[in-house]
Amino acid sequence: MKNQQVLMQSRPQGWVTEDNFKLVESDIPKPAAGHVLIKNHFLSLDPYMRGRMGTGKSYVKGVEIGEVMTGEAAGEVIESQHPSFKPGDKVVAHTGWQLYGVLPGESVRKVDASKIPLSYFLGMVGMPGCTAYFGLSEIGQPKAGETVVVSGAAGAVGGIVGQISKLRGSRVVGIAGGKAKCDYVTKELGFDACLDYKAGNLFENLRAAAPKGVDVFWDNVGGEITDMALAQANTFARFVVCGMISQYNATEAYGLKNYRSVLVNRIRMQGMIVFDWAARYPEAWSQLGEWVTSGQIKYRETLAEGLKSAPRAFVGLLKGDNVGKQLVRLTP
Amino acid sequence: MKNQQVLMQSRPQGWVTEDNFKLVESDIPKPAAGHVLIKNHFLSLDPYMRGRMGTGKSYVKGVEIGEVMTGEAAGEVIESQHPSFKPGDKVVAHTGWQLYGVLPGESVRKVDASKIPLSYFLGMVGMPGCTAYFGLSEIGQPKAGETVVVSGAAGAVGGIVGQISKLRGSRVVGIAGGKAKCDYVTKELGFDACLDYKAGNLFENLRAAAPKGVDVFWDNVGGEITDMALAQANTFARFVVCGMISQYNATEAYGLKNYRSVLVNRIRMQGMIVFDWAARYPEAWSQLGEWVTSGQIKYRETLAEGLKSAPRAFVGLLKGDNVGKQLVRLTP
Repeated sequence: MKNQQVLMQSRPQGWVTEDNFKLVESDIPKPAAGHVLIKNHFLSLDPYMRGRMGTGKSYVKGVEIGEVMTGEAAGEVIESQHPSFKPGDKVVAHTGWQLYGVLPGESVRKVDASKIPLSYFLGMVGMPGCTAYFGLSEIGQPKAGETVVVSGAAGAVGGIVGQISKLRGSRVVGIAGGKAKCDYVTKELGFDACLDYKAGNLFENLRAAAPKGVDVFWDNVGGEITDMALAQANTFARFVVCGMISQYNATEAYGLKNYRSVLVNRIRMQGMIVFDWAARYPEAWSQLGEWVTSGQIKYRETLAEGLKSAPRAFVGLLKGDNVGKQLVRLTP
Repeated sequence: MKNQQVLMQSRPQGWVTEDNFKLVESDIPKPAAGHVLIKNHFLSLDPYMRGRMGTGKSYVKGVEIGEVMTGEAAGEVIESQHPSFKPGDKVVAHTGWQLYGVLPGESVRKVDASKIPLSYFLGMVGMPGCTAYFGLSEIGQPKAGETVVVSGAAGAVGGIVGQISKLRGSRVVGIAGGKAKCDYVTKELGFDACLDYKAGNLFENLRAAAPKGVDVFWDNVGGEITDMALAQANTFARFVVCGMISQYNATEAYGLKNYRSVLVNRIRMQGMIVFDWAARYPEAWSQLGEWVTSGQIKYRETLAEGLKSAPRAFVGLLKGDNVGKQLVRLTP
């Protein structure tokens, strides 16, 4: 048996293409003392990975050419040289895009997949869920009767953001691309409205869907949609700046024209990255797990099949092809 | 004796001109029950007034054509129909641009001008001082060893912001227009450096003057300078959005290109207007008064002479002619 890995073989200029990646075979590594060998079942694909492919400043060091693409996966322990793990344990870890990975036990999260499906620990009860949870509790702070607008509403984070806001009594308006996504957002996730940005007239539609203005804007997208939200913001609005997917592949940055609204409306706009709250993840996991097992929050996954499909699925994610959480299933 | 008033006779398109104003004579009004008649000694000119001249959304209702221009003045009570005031009391009030004004006693601030000059209650120990005080204590929160960058550094608010930050142990870099202003900012106010944005190479100069990056950016100006500050911002930087003087007369808004820095650096960017802290003004006045009487904070005024000079002085303020606080002296 061999390991398979996806390497970054070139840096994207503008849009990522499948050519930026290369699938290779290698030996399955052996765990040294304190380490575990993991066989991955699911690989998570997330927009932040685009940032790791460039040389610009991002949260953490980027991927070098020829290295395994970075990413989180869920799987099971095959061999353990760490006292906290034994073969068969279900785990989540940053192994990168490969079938097998070896990591120090301290950086591996053991999960209980008996009540919650293993793959959910990459989404609803993982990084995207924690992002929604802390971004709302620490920055967005939606209140009953307020209006929350969520861009990227059909994505993993956006869908959870809107549903938590609904649980807090806010009116929730999503923004997504295409009728199918908008139907998912309103009919399955229960948002009050969803605007299709590809259908045109977004600004007018936003005014109509948020007649009392925008109190919380959750930004997954950046660009022109952020400008529209600024133009509709209420006094003391909170802008959670979580992602900027419209800009990741742009060769020229969009110029934000309505910055003055920050002043006039005393908006608090704050960038976030979930690992700033790493010490509090267990609190979020517990609450998120409760919400999903009780059915209070709905969650959907889009699965690509096999590691070789990861590059194509990632390009699709950046173009907005996915509904809900984008994963790659690595085991048949 | 007659009253003199400056009315707004037309709305500016782009830059404000003296033609937008008109000086008229009228009778001195009589105070009704609960009111006081004030004779103004000093009129305050402030950048925010530009916003009141347009029809766009601002903090409060704008000035209508034919109305007295809005503004705060310092003077003395001439006649009182309110139990808390007697003739000779020194006061500060929003009388607008005129020699005499009548206001309800509740909206008039009595001040002790025995240790602090009366005019200072329009600046250092008034609205601009409170703006600096609350913007720093509540949003900017500069710490010892951090780098604070202040645009509009030679203006009333900017000069106080930098000096308070110095008292808190930060490295303080000002940005101002012209060598004379920069000399004032460094030699008189004690900033560590001041960059002349008119001299070119501002971005390179900012990198050199803030080699450890920007932790707090105080924005009085907006536009390209904000973009430069975003590009130099450190992780967890705070941006106090206090003014946008570069944009007030612009017919097309500047497009902010470095919004992505808010995400990557988890910047907290917050708009402010001082009257959100009105309930806490006395706390600020007490501290600001102590700083200025002890000489720990320096303060300079630029005086125009006579009410008829107010329009020209206001146009000059918007173009950056003033050093320190711009006032109009109304009494010979």
